[in-house]
Amino acid sequence: MSTKTTFSEISPSEFFYRNRDLAGFSNPSRALYSAVREIVENSLDSCELYRILPEIYVRLSYVDGEEDKPEPKKYELLAVDNGSGIEKEQIPKAFGRIFYGSKYRLRQTRGMFGMGGTMAVLYSQITTNRAVEITSSVDGKTAYKFVMLIDIEKNYPSILSEEANDAKGWRGTKVKLQLVGDYFRSSSKINDYFKNTALVTPYANITFVDPNGKMMQFLRNTNTMPEPPKETLPHPHGIDVEAVKRLIKNWKGGTMTKFMVQTFHRVGNKIALDFLSYAGIPSNIDPRELSNEDIVKLTDALHAYDKFLPPDGRCLSPLGEEIFTAGIVKELEPEFYAVEVREPAAYSGYPFIIEVGLAYGGKNNQPGLRLLRFANRIPLLYDEGSDVSFKVLNEEIDFKRYNVPQDAPLSIITHISSTKVPYKTVGKEYIADRPEIEKELRNGMREVLRKLQVYLGRKGSMEKQRRKMNIYSRYMPLIARFSAALVGAKRLPPYNKLIGLDMFQDDDNADKVG
Amino acid sequence: MSTKTTFSEISPSEFFYRNRDLAGFSNPSRALYSAVREIVENSLDSCELYRILPEIYVRLSYVDGEEDKPEPKKYELLAVDNGSGIEKEQIPKAFGRIFYGSKYRLRQTRGMFGMGGTMAVLYSQITTNRAVEITSSVDGKTAYKFVMLIDIEKNYPSILSEEANDAKGWRGTKVKLQLVGDYFRSSSKINDYFKNTALVTPYANITFVDPNGKMMQFLRNTNTMPEPPKETLPHPHGIDVEAVKRLIKNWKGGTMTKFMVQTFHRVGNKIALDFLSYAGIPSNIDPRELSNEDIVKLTDALHAYDKFLPPDGRCLSPLGEEIFTAGIVKELEPEFYAVEVREPAAYSGYPFIIEVGLAYGGKNNQPGLRLLRFANRIPLLYDEGSDVSFKVLNEEIDFKRYNVPQDAPLSIITHISSTKVPYKTVGKEYIADRPEIEKELRNGMREVLRKLQVYLGRKGSMEKQRRKMNIYSRYMPLIARFSAALVGAKRLPPYNKLIGLDMFQDDDNADKVG
Repeated sequence: MSTKTTFSEISPSEFFYRNRDLAGFSNPSRALYSAVREIVENSLDSCELYRILPEIYVRLSYVDGEEDKPEPKKYELLAVDNGSGIEKEQIPKAFGRIFYGSKYRLRQTRGMFGMGGTMAVLYSQITTNRAVEITSSVDGKTAYKFVMLIDIEKNYPSILSEEANDAKGWRGTKVKLQLVGDYFRSSSKINDYFKNTALVTPYANITFVDPNGKMMQFLRNTNTMPEPPKETLPHPHGIDVEAVKRLIKNWKGGTMTKFMVQTFHRVGNKIALDFLSYAGIPSNIDPRELSNEDIVKLTDALHAYDKFLPPDGRCLSPLGEEIFTAGIVKELEPEFYAVEVREPAAYSGYPFIIEVGLAYGGKNNQPGLRLLRFANRIPLLYDEGSDVSFKVLNEEIDFKRYNVPQDAPLSIITHISSTKVPYKTVGKEYIADRPEIEKELRNGMREVLRKLQVYLGRKGSMEKQRRKMNIYSRYMPLIARFSAALVGAKRLPPYNKLIGLDMFQDDDNADKVG
Repeated sequence: MSTKTTFSEISPSEFFYRNRDLAGFSNPSRALYSAVREIVENSLDSCELYRILPEIYVRLSYVDGEEDKPEPKKYELLAVDNGSGIEKEQIPKAFGRIFYGSKYRLRQTRGMFGMGGTMAVLYSQITTNRAVEITSSVDGKTAYKFVMLIDIEKNYPSILSEEANDAKGWRGTKVKLQLVGDYFRSSSKINDYFKNTALVTPYANITFVDPNGKMMQFLRNTNTMPEPPKETLPHPHGIDVEAVKRLIKNWKGGTMTKFMVQTFHRVGNKIALDFLSYAGIPSNIDPRELSNEDIVKLTDALHAYDKFLPPDGRCLSPLGEEIFTAGIVKELEPEFYAVEVREPAAYSGYPFIIEVGLAYGGKNNQPGLRLLRFANRIPLLYDEGSDVSFKVLNEEIDFKRYNVPQDAPLSIITHISSTKVPYKTVGKEYIADRPEIEKELRNGMREVLRKLQVYLGRKGSMEKQRRKMNIYSRYMPLIARFSAALVGAKRLPPYNKLIGLDMFQDDDNADKVG
């Protein structure tokens, strides 16, 4: 038998075409959800980066003749936004190449892998063989429309037609594609996706029309938008040898001290000098003079030195208390809510901020605990059991300590903002259990639960008081009448005022007292 | 504010360099585990594809001067196998390019994404900046040794040196690299990995030497190797438009009937003709004459037609009862075991076989239920909670029905063999919950539990019998003596024989009877 092993090379598109489960496109139900989600997230990113109040319109409809067929069947997905738009030359590649995108930077965005839009196009193509239509305008004057497919083996867009039209004042991006989906099995996830997105983007107008013509509308209840996230320099603690080598390669010249200050996040002159003496590297040489060994030594020292300032959370764009509260009030209408915004922290050199919200009772909380997870304002709806928030909530939070009954109608909402969310899958389903993140989640959850405890405690003692008063209120009038009769008084004594019954009295008791 | 979005392109190496969490290289502990695992799995694949009884040697050691440093620190990983070896020209690319590999075929292998070896090299480089050494011989005569790095931005090997040496009869591959790891935190997983690998490869000799010089040896207890897996044609049910277009593009000419028979898995003349008439496509045209619309119609029909034969499991290489049993007996030494090999089944056109083993009691089963998961002979040790086997075991199996006590010392072992295991992460942690797979797992688990029920039932009734006899044995001698005295007999009646006490009697009772 020949033992010659045959090797072959595949393109990035080919890889994700073959392994689309990895990117959340496993089956018609899941793929429909992922396509909607990826397109919406690109739209929201393109609005928020430039502080444009988002207007998003998404419509799913049956392709002609498919309505009465059994699932899975062909759907048309149309999405229009008012974001920044994409420059003409970039449109085909932005949607037609895997590993080509605008998300490959140290900046907080919903997209993390820069491939969501292309995956939707790729999935559309392999299930329907129909070209997609992308239209975009960056200036409100001209809108460029491309009709295209992807050459999967080459990982390159294959443009069928392009045209320039009058944009008539519209700036933004419009995507129209067909795909095989299963709305029957994905509708509840897609609906949850929109509801939860609205919860963390109360400043957006989002319209979703489902294949049966049912319209869901989420209208903004605040015009406050979060600060657009900023791009940052890398933090010394998170950097590896490869990255250090690249920084040196791109270094235009200057001393080690200058290199430290200009290349790294939050390194000033003083710290740079102290660090270099710690690392045993002369401060006045040019980093390009360092040998391979020196670079390894430098990197090791960057990790070990403990006087670097922690990453600065100001590059991040958390929801903030105002927006988070607005979202909870609008979407969950709870009886009681609490929000805790933690201080910025860091893991492996990446800054992050944890926010935890709590909503208790009201019309949208069923009995029992519900966890709503968000990361860079994306709702995470799959694989809850593997997520760090689920782990912390279930393993480290003792609800009895906060006197929260087992079946309390309670939602816990967690949100992580980071320049790099440590997802464990390209499909962005769940977050890895980094200890630094666990700690912030734990403290955030405890804080909102303490607030709930205070509320429930106050409510409980008022309830007790009220019950006590109810009992008094039954007997007091009798005693009052009896004693009035005894002393021959004409008027009953003002017992209501005396024991504060009027405060607690409801109509029911009022009748009896009368 | 400018709203111009900047786009950039990154190479596949760059993508996985930035997102190494996706491939199981999240942190020093996990990365050490993943590196060991990926290298071992390549070795086992290269043996089994050519039916070579595997001899695998793996050594982890401290890099000089690192031993007394705190974790994480630098380790050297050395792995040697006796597999098929890699041709000289392929060595650098096999370990130096992402998306270049030997696993991109419809064949059952441990590797599924063709990037494990390269990821280990990449991680080595970015944490230590040291070149790796790969040596391989395909003929036992010449061994080629490459010292190399990866040019991550170009996704291309950068060769520092190469040499040819006398292989002295050795055929196989040897990998030597340095990496930052945390053995303290990963040792239990690494040890479990080897133990569990030995459980499903009882025909392999595997030696692992840990950084402290402790040697674990797993020696083969059978020379029976599973059939090498075969490459298959795609099944019509699993194919998409893109794949159909490619098959037509590569078609050398001939009728639709011939195309159907020669291109698809298990399609004969009769079925081809029946299918084509069902699809409304003339059987005598050349597929290259089909329009785009026709191709979509053809693909839809391939999915909808229900008379195709199911995928043939003969291309798969399950463990089989003999090897599975040998592994369980050798590694778990249970009091009772059972194995169930299911019939081949299929999901989305990919054939798979489920095997379920059960081991009860013995010295290696602690009280409580343990799940051991395998896929194409890989142990899966992370993210159990998201795995399909965990889901089925916890949600669909009622242990009370099988009279299995809650704390029974029980291991359930599941193994899926498939040309495409539906992993949800590149790190191969867990398997998606396809309904077809759930069904086979459910039935397999029920079958082994029924066998356990019978065993426990029999054991239970013997136990009861024995306890009853113990009671008899206390009183019988007295009654015998009493009645013997009553009738003035010289000898006691043979009561042992009468009630079968001698069968159950242990030494303790024997004394009393005497």
